Amino acid sequence: MPKFFITALLLLFFVGFSQAQELKSPNGKFSMRFSLQGKGVPTYALTYKGKQVITPSKLGFELKTKDAAAASGGSDANMDQKAVNQQASLHDNFTVAETKTSSVKESWNPVWGEVKTIQNHYNELAVTLNQKGTDRKMVVRFRLYDDGLGFRYEFPTQKNLTYFVIKEERTQFGMAGDHTAYWIAGDYDTQEYDYTTSKLSEIRGIMSKAVTNNLSQTTFSPTGVQTSLMMKSNDGLYINLHEAALIDYPVMHLNLDDKNMVFESWLTPDAIGDKGYMQAPRSTPWRTVIVSDDARDILASKMTYNLNEPSKIKDTSWIKPVKYVGVWWEMITGKSTWSYTNDYPTVQIGITDFSKAKPNGTHGANTANVKRYIDFAAKHGFDGVLVEGWNVGWEDWFGNSKDFVFDFVTPYPDFDVKGIAEYAKSKGVKMIMHHETSSSVRNYERHMDKAYQFMKDNGYDAVKSGYVGDILPRGENHYSQWIVNHYQHALEKAAEYKIMVNAHEAVRPTGVARTWPNLIGNESARGTEYQSFGGSKPNHVTLIPFTRLLGGPMDYTPGIFEMDLSKLNPDNKSHVNSTLANQLALYLTLYSPLQMAADLPENYDRFPDAFQFIKDVAVDWDDSKYLEAEPGEYITVARKAKGTGQWFLGSVGGNEARTSNIRLDFLDKGKKYVATIYADAKDAHYKTNPQAYTIRKVNVTNKSKLSQFVAPGGGYAISFVEAPGK
Amino acid sequence: MPKFFITALLLLFFVGFSQAQELKSPNGKFSMRFSLQGKGVPTYALTYKGKQVITPSKLGFELKTKDAAAASGGSDANMDQKAVNQQASLHDNFTVAETKTSSVKESWNPVWGEVKTIQNHYNELAVTLNQKGTDRKMVVRFRLYDDGLGFRYEFPTQKNLTYFVIKEERTQFGMAGDHTAYWIAGDYDTQEYDYTTSKLSEIRGIMSKAVTNNLSQTTFSPTGVQTSLMMKSNDGLYINLHEAALIDYPVMHLNLDDKNMVFESWLTPDAIGDKGYMQAPRSTPWRTVIVSDDARDILASKMTYNLNEPSKIKDTSWIKPVKYVGVWWEMITGKSTWSYTNDYPTVQIGITDFSKAKPNGTHGANTANVKRYIDFAAKHGFDGVLVEGWNVGWEDWFGNSKDFVFDFVTPYPDFDVKGIAEYAKSKGVKMIMHHETSSSVRNYERHMDKAYQFMKDNGYDAVKSGYVGDILPRGENHYSQWIVNHYQHALEKAAEYKIMVNAHEAVRPTGVARTWPNLIGNESARGTEYQSFGGSKPNHVTLIPFTRLLGGPMDYTPGIFEMDLSKLNPDNKSHVNSTLANQLALYLTLYSPLQMAADLPENYDRFPDAFQFIKDVAVDWDDSKYLEAEPGEYITVARKAKGTGQWFLGSVGGNEARTSNIRLDFLDKGKKYVATIYADAKDAHYKTNPQAYTIRKVNVTNKSKLSQFVAPGGGYAISFVEAPGK
Repeated sequence: MPKFFITALLLLFFVGFSQAQELKSPNGKFSMRFSLQGKGVPTYALTYKGKQVITPSKLGFELKTKDAAAASGGSDANMDQKAVNQQASLHDNFTVAETKTSSVKESWNPVWGEVKTIQNHYNELAVTLNQKGTDRKMVVRFRLYDDGLGFRYEFPTQKNLTYFVIKEERTQFGMAGDHTAYWIAGDYDTQEYDYTTSKLSEIRGIMSKAVTNNLSQTTFSPTGVQTSLMMKSNDGLYINLHEAALIDYPVMHLNLDDKNMVFESWLTPDAIGDKGYMQAPRSTPWRTVIVSDDARDILASKMTYNLNEPSKIKDTSWIKPVKYVGVWWEMITGKSTWSYTNDYPTVQIGITDFSKAKPNGTHGANTANVKRYIDFAAKHGFDGVLVEGWNVGWEDWFGNSKDFVFDFVTPYPDFDVKGIAEYAKSKGVKMIMHHETSSSVRNYERHMDKAYQFMKDNGYDAVKSGYVGDILPRGENHYSQWIVNHYQHALEKAAEYKIMVNAHEAVRPTGVARTWPNLIGNESARGTEYQSFGGSKPNHVTLIPFTRLLGGPMDYTPGIFEMDLSKLNPDNKSHVNSTLANQLALYLTLYSPLQMAADLPENYDRFPDAFQFIKDVAVDWDDSKYLEAEPGEYITVARKAKGTGQWFLGSVGGNEARTSNIRLDFLDKGKKYVATIYADAKDAHYKTNPQAYTIRKVNVTNKSKLSQFVAPGGGYAISFVEAPGK
Repeated sequence: MPKFFITALLLLFFVGFSQAQELKSPNGKFSMRFSLQGKGVPTYALTYKGKQVITPSKLGFELKTKDAAAASGGSDANMDQKAVNQQASLHDNFTVAETKTSSVKESWNPVWGEVKTIQNHYNELAVTLNQKGTDRKMVVRFRLYDDGLGFRYEFPTQKNLTYFVIKEERTQFGMAGDHTAYWIAGDYDTQEYDYTTSKLSEIRGIMSKAVTNNLSQTTFSPTGVQTSLMMKSNDGLYINLHEAALIDYPVMHLNLDDKNMVFESWLTPDAIGDKGYMQAPRSTPWRTVIVSDDARDILASKMTYNLNEPSKIKDTSWIKPVKYVGVWWEMITGKSTWSYTNDYPTVQIGITDFSKAKPNGTHGANTANVKRYIDFAAKHGFDGVLVEGWNVGWEDWFGNSKDFVFDFVTPYPDFDVKGIAEYAKSKGVKMIMHHETSSSVRNYERHMDKAYQFMKDNGYDAVKSGYVGDILPRGENHYSQWIVNHYQHALEKAAEYKIMVNAHEAVRPTGVARTWPNLIGNESARGTEYQSFGGSKPNHVTLIPFTRLLGGPMDYTPGIFEMDLSKLNPDNKSHVNSTLANQLALYLTLYSPLQMAADLPENYDRFPDAFQFIKDVAVDWDDSKYLEAEPGEYITVARKAKGTGQWFLGSVGGNEARTSNIRLDFLDKGKKYVATIYADAKDAHYKTNPQAYTIRKVNVTNKSKLSQFVAPGGGYAISFVEAPGK
């Protein structure tokens, strides 16, 4: 047979398998095209207003062969290499068995959030694929919204695919150009890097500089980055890649083929390198592509939440947004300590007798100091007081792979649990529990029931949990399936006890708080504490909302008024790279139902006029309007407080000074307001003059415009009060 | 400097560090010599009646360098290679800082056991070693008994050794010759191999044949073997190497240097290859060398228990020996199934609705069948009934790395928990719970409290737990520190609920039942079930008491009367390699406070005269006398029942026929007895004629002798009843 003839035949073959499916977003601006390419390889592509967002990109999985063989009833010994390869590939040889389309338009009210009501409006395409030779079924479900695309893999109940192990997920995201990316290094154990802004092609060269020291870290590739990944194309598209509804599955990182500008999923492995243990029927998390030509739309997107299941908590009346202070920043800055004594090289829970230990005199969580914070909270109207370092074990809590590191119920001798509980109650203040696990997750699970019960017995209904250091059991990672499962377990068990959770160093959120709204906060990014460990970039806070916050709120702990940390602790040479006005604006720009006023009471007492804004600002909202946004440069948002109708506004800038020009057209029509504007002074600067701020009052309506100076690392905040007498 | 001068100096140096210490056993037959050799290397040697048992052998550890560095406040980057090596070695450069000797002679009464009172009589030498350069302290504590040597390492509280990670323990056991060994392959995940008898020098050549298939297995060396390791020297010494008080430490295997006949400890690693996470103050388990020139002394040794701590359970009144039957052998043989339905390729706990599933008709744990066993137990005076397969999840319980595999509280629709509990109570029979974990240990820990409470609520006070298959989390091993810690956790938590534990596939016992006497049984060796999976060697039961049983009782599940398993299940071609009389003898020769009559009620009904012995035999003892013993060949033991004073005797043979010649001088002086002797018929044979037995009654006193034929794979059992009227 002549060669040209074979080519012709192959061409026919390919065309025969092309079977393209088209899906449009409700507003028609997005178009997604699914097809089988080559030898039955599932492929998708995405355009926005005719511009290519995702170039034709492959879908599928590579399975661990042994398990694939076992799943099909075979055994390695009896399988030839071809059969083994066939079992391993869940990325080719597919035919389309069925396609289904549908549309959904509905709305739901979150328990807490940026807006009162969230629209869930999408067109859906579900493609059922059949793999030839193995007779395995896989569904790819696409949901196309007006703000982007979500898709996931589903493995229905079937005979030839029951249990299987994922060696790697092979989901590609082909980029249409060498975009500007706002990225942090892919890492199995930390999300707390400072963001780097560079072209995609520059990532490889910058990577080693971008990976700074962390207490637990495991990078994996010179072009590996984390989601949520924010990008901007040369033709003005803002593109965000992330995931939604990550439950019992490893975190997806993105590895860049920087010759072809194609990202491919890179799951977090377990101790033996496996990436996902699956039992059909199962679905993967959703892979998300949020896109707009207006950066504000990215911030306002609710697609991530929409792709999660509705609340599984029936009675949510006990879940309440919280503004709080705490015994925390004084330890972070080194002014005081979590530990109680310096007597012992090591301590043992249940054996070391702390009542006989000599106090070190620097223990922050002592009853008198805690009562001082309670008094402060009560005086200024805060809901809660967090106390870290209250429970025994902090003398050697970190870096030792110590299994039984905390018991979560035994206080130091100078922390009077009952007395403090009663005092807080008498002052109308809620105590917030702290459970540092030191990443000894089995130990936490063993003590969890007793620890949660102890909270309820002492009037605590929110917990800040922590996962500092390397995970125990050794070999597991902070973001592997096993540990992701643990965070979820802790969250669900907390819900049984009606406890709200704010997990630090845990997996970055993916909208799971819709399903489990007791997850009122997470850290899972570089928070304010890094300002005490050498500082963060001044424009860091203009990037967090484009990345980390898309999955859920962050306990960023803003509100630092004293930027020179040597004033708290002479040994601390770190500087907070932010103006005081910028710190105020963060209560708006970093949305969270859980907001801390992180600085010391004595520092707030020095600036009562500025502190007034923190006292006034709401933490739950009926509406939010993003007025200005550009990643790395600025974000301005106005929010309407839940129930009261009062508006607040916050604006943060980046590394350079700028002027913010906005219209106040979000204000209620026909009403007159007194706006109190907390802004950088003209000579303010995050480094040299951070405490230079001005406060002015102006009368405004929804027809007003504002032109406001923002210093480098600066910002401004506004509270609007309806003018008396109209 | 001329070369000879250097040699002379070195010699002086070595001599200076020799510092030998001598320790004798109370009866003077053992002598242990400790010294520092070469460059301060701790070394010990042991003789028995002047014969070398342990040639001069090294002691110490290799530490994980990074952690050693961290522990001393340094960092890898700042340490030069010499310093790193110095940190890693905890096996040389020692000086003797202090030596202490002491003697202990005491006795204690076990909660259950072979004897009423156990003597604990030893001389002790504690050597405190100081490491030059690192200033680290380590104590080696030796206890020399009349039956052998125990020693352990202790790490007292100190500045320069707080937390450390063991890369390998370097404890050597130098053998004085090419002994005969009764060994199973070293393995991180199974202890269920058949024993091999060979010279030490032959192990390497036989290893691959000795490693047979198991559901979870990880071998590590062609000369790696397990403890307890039984050996016999050419000059007639019986030597056993094992460990005692294994708590929160990995299992020790032994790796043989078969050129020099030196065993070295080989600990079970975790997922990343580390072998022990330590925090001072800590001790290792004891390493034991039990020795005699009479094999019976090995069986009677209580050294392993003596090296464990006294009971931590104050009120032990709820811990009671148990003789039981159960719904078990019928599933093991394939006559019935653990699973309830064949409807689904996979099931999900809490989601799959078993009430709508079509029953497979083979489910063993159905209410009617369970009541049949309860009736049988009540009729014949058994204490308990075990039921496996009662709880949902057995359809796909194994081999899938399934995390949430069982919940331990939800019965199948045909198992009436409450009805069965009431029925058993009305018949005076205790139900025995079954918790198969499928080695998903996190899942078990998550459900443990509820599972134990469920037991108490339904009148169960003993649990048989199981750890079939590969451990979850992946990478951990059945005998790594992490998982050893789990078994202990389960045991201690069970004690909180006053629950007795019989853990299968868990770590082999090391006398921990002295400290936690609710551990009334373990499998942790090749039990009767293997007779249904292809068979065990006929002499297997003559080896178990010399090896596995030294650490604690085994739930061997004897009492099989029907050796042709095709009679239970036509598809089962396996044969039980034992005579019926041998099965009776096992109730004596395999000491356990927990004894099953493992065969089906209908098989016992066929042999009521032989079954009478199982009904009569006690399970707890005031005294035990080993009358004959040779590993691999025979064991004969007489035991005096607790409280009643009634004597029983059991004798098992090996592969060949033999005649057992014993004196009945253990019987109470001056008393007359009727001995009922259950023995092999002359033509009995484990393979061809296993059910040929005779029962005869003879009058005996303590002056009587007995000469008794034992068939290949055979044995005999005797119950002595005091003759009426004296």
